[in-house]
Amino acid sequence: MSKIEKDLPLILVTNDDGIKAGGLEALVKMLKQIGNVVVVAPNESYSGMSHAITVKTPLYAKLVRQKKGLMLYKVNGTPVDCIKLAINVLLDRKPDLVVSGINHGTNSSISLHYSGTVGAAREGALNQVPAIGFSLLNYSHSADFSEAIKVAEHVVKSVLEDKLPMGTFLNVNIPDVMPVKGAKVVRQSKGKWIEEFVEREDPRGRKYYWLTGHFENLEPEAKDTDEHILEKGFASIVPCHLDATNYSLISYLKDQNYELQM
Amino acid sequence: MSKIEKDLPLILVTNDDGIKAGGLEALVKMLKQIGNVVVVAPNESYSGMSHAITVKTPLYAKLVRQKKGLMLYKVNGTPVDCIKLAINVLLDRKPDLVVSGINHGTNSSISLHYSGTVGAAREGALNQVPAIGFSLLNYSHSADFSEAIKVAEHVVKSVLEDKLPMGTFLNVNIPDVMPVKGAKVVRQSKGKWIEEFVEREDPRGRKYYWLTGHFENLEPEAKDTDEHILEKGFASIVPCHLDATNYSLISYLKDQNYELQM
Repeated sequence: MSKIEKDLPLILVTNDDGIKAGGLEALVKMLKQIGNVVVVAPNESYSGMSHAITVKTPLYAKLVRQKKGLMLYKVNGTPVDCIKLAINVLLDRKPDLVVSGINHGTNSSISLHYSGTVGAAREGALNQVPAIGFSLLNYSHSADFSEAIKVAEHVVKSVLEDKLPMGTFLNVNIPDVMPVKGAKVVRQSKGKWIEEFVEREDPRGRKYYWLTGHFENLEPEAKDTDEHILEKGFASIVPCHLDATNYSLISYLKDQNYELQM
Repeated sequence: MSKIEKDLPLILVTNDDGIKAGGLEALVKMLKQIGNVVVVAPNESYSGMSHAITVKTPLYAKLVRQKKGLMLYKVNGTPVDCIKLAINVLLDRKPDLVVSGINHGTNSSISLHYSGTVGAAREGALNQVPAIGFSLLNYSHSADFSEAIKVAEHVVKSVLEDKLPMGTFLNVNIPDVMPVKGAKVVRQSKGKWIEEFVEREDPRGRKYYWLTGHFENLEPEAKDTDEHILEKGFASIVPCHLDATNYSLISYLKDQNYELQM
C-alpha cells in the first residue's frame, strides 16, 4: 500500500460487470479526485450474482495496476467475494467507503435482489462500512456515464461527510436521460418480473431455456418510489438495511398459532 | 401433469444442496402426505448462491422421476432459476406453496443473505406464492432430519391453512438437538461473519485463498432473536419481506442534503 497517500479517505470499489467495464472506469476517474482508490473487481461479468459467494473453488487476486492513489486487482469471483477478499486480505485497514458500479443496467425496485452490484454494497454494510451501489438505466457497453457521475460524486461526498448509520447501504439508480434533473431519497417500489423463457432445441434434440422477461411496476400511482422518480428524470436514492424481518407479522403469526411446543 | 391429483395443494420444492441431498429427500417424504409435490432442484450443490440467476448459459430441465403425486426435475441452475423455470415453464398452474430445503447447515441471522435456500423462498414470494425456507443447524451429509421434519410439517400446515400476506416468506431454522423443544416466531439477529481466508500457493507459485470464517452474534443479550431461540433448543421462524427500504432513514437523508437539483 506504499502508493496510497495518508489522510485521504480509502475507497474500495467493485462492480459486477467486470474490471474492464466502462461504468467502473468512469467511477474510478471521479473517485480518484476524492480519495485513495483500491479497485477489487471480478475478472469478467458476474451479472445476476446477487449476494453469492464462491465456496467450491479458491480465489486468486491479481494486481493489474498500481499508481499514485490507485490500485487495481482482478479476482476470479463474485462482487461479494471481491469485498470480502479486499477487506480481509488485500487492504491493510478497513476502507472508509465501499462503492459498487456504475452498473450497466437498472437495479431499482425488486431487481436489487438479483443484483451483484447491490450485493457488493450490502457486503460493505455487513462489514460495518458505509456502502453505495450505483446503476445507470442503460445496458449498453458504450453508455454515456457523464450525468451518472455527477449524481455519484454528490452521493459519495454526502456519505463521506455525514456517514451512514451502521448496517445501512444506498441503492442509487440513475435514469438514462440528458440532463438528469437531480436525485431524490425514495422507497423501493413494489414490482415483479414477468418472465418469458425462450425455448430452443439443441443438436441432440434436448429442449433448453434462456431466461428473459420485463419488469412491471405494481405501484404505478405511488409518487414516493424509485420507479416513479426515475420516470420523472431524477436519480433514486433508496436507503437499505440488512434486517429482512417483517416486524408487522411477528404478532400476527403468533396469533395464528405458528408457534409450537414439542 | 397427468399423475397429479386434483384438489390437493400443489407444492413446489427446491433446495441448494442438490437433488440428491438427504434434507430434500426427508422433506419430500413428508410433503407427499400433504399435497402434490413437484421437485425442481439443482443437479448439484449450489450453496452460497444467494438470489443468483443464470444469465450467461441456457437452462436444461430433466424429468428424473414421476409417480403418483410426485414429479422430480433436475436443473443445471441455481435455486432461484429452479423456481422461475418451474413457475413459468414446468408447472401448468401457479403452486400453492414453495418450500426450499431442508438445508444442510444454518441460515439464521445475516446468513440468509448468502443462502440459496432462502433465495428460492424469496423468489416464491416475488411470484406471489407463500414460501418457506428450512435449514437444519448440521452440515453433515448424514444429518438426522427427524426433528426438523416435525417442525417443517407444522409450519407447512400453518401456511397452507392461514396463508401468508403477499410478498412474505418465512426463514425457518432448526437446532441440531434431540428433542427440539418447539418453534418460536422471532426476528433476525444482528450478526457478522469473522472471515479468515486460508492462503495457499499453487504449483506455479501463485497465492490463492479459500473463504472460511465463523459467525458472531452481535446481540448476545437479546431474547427475541433467531440466534437466541436456537441456542435455547427451539426452531426459529422469521417472517421476511421483499422490501429492503430502511424507512427510518428517508427523512434523515433528506435532512442531510442527500437530495440534489441539477
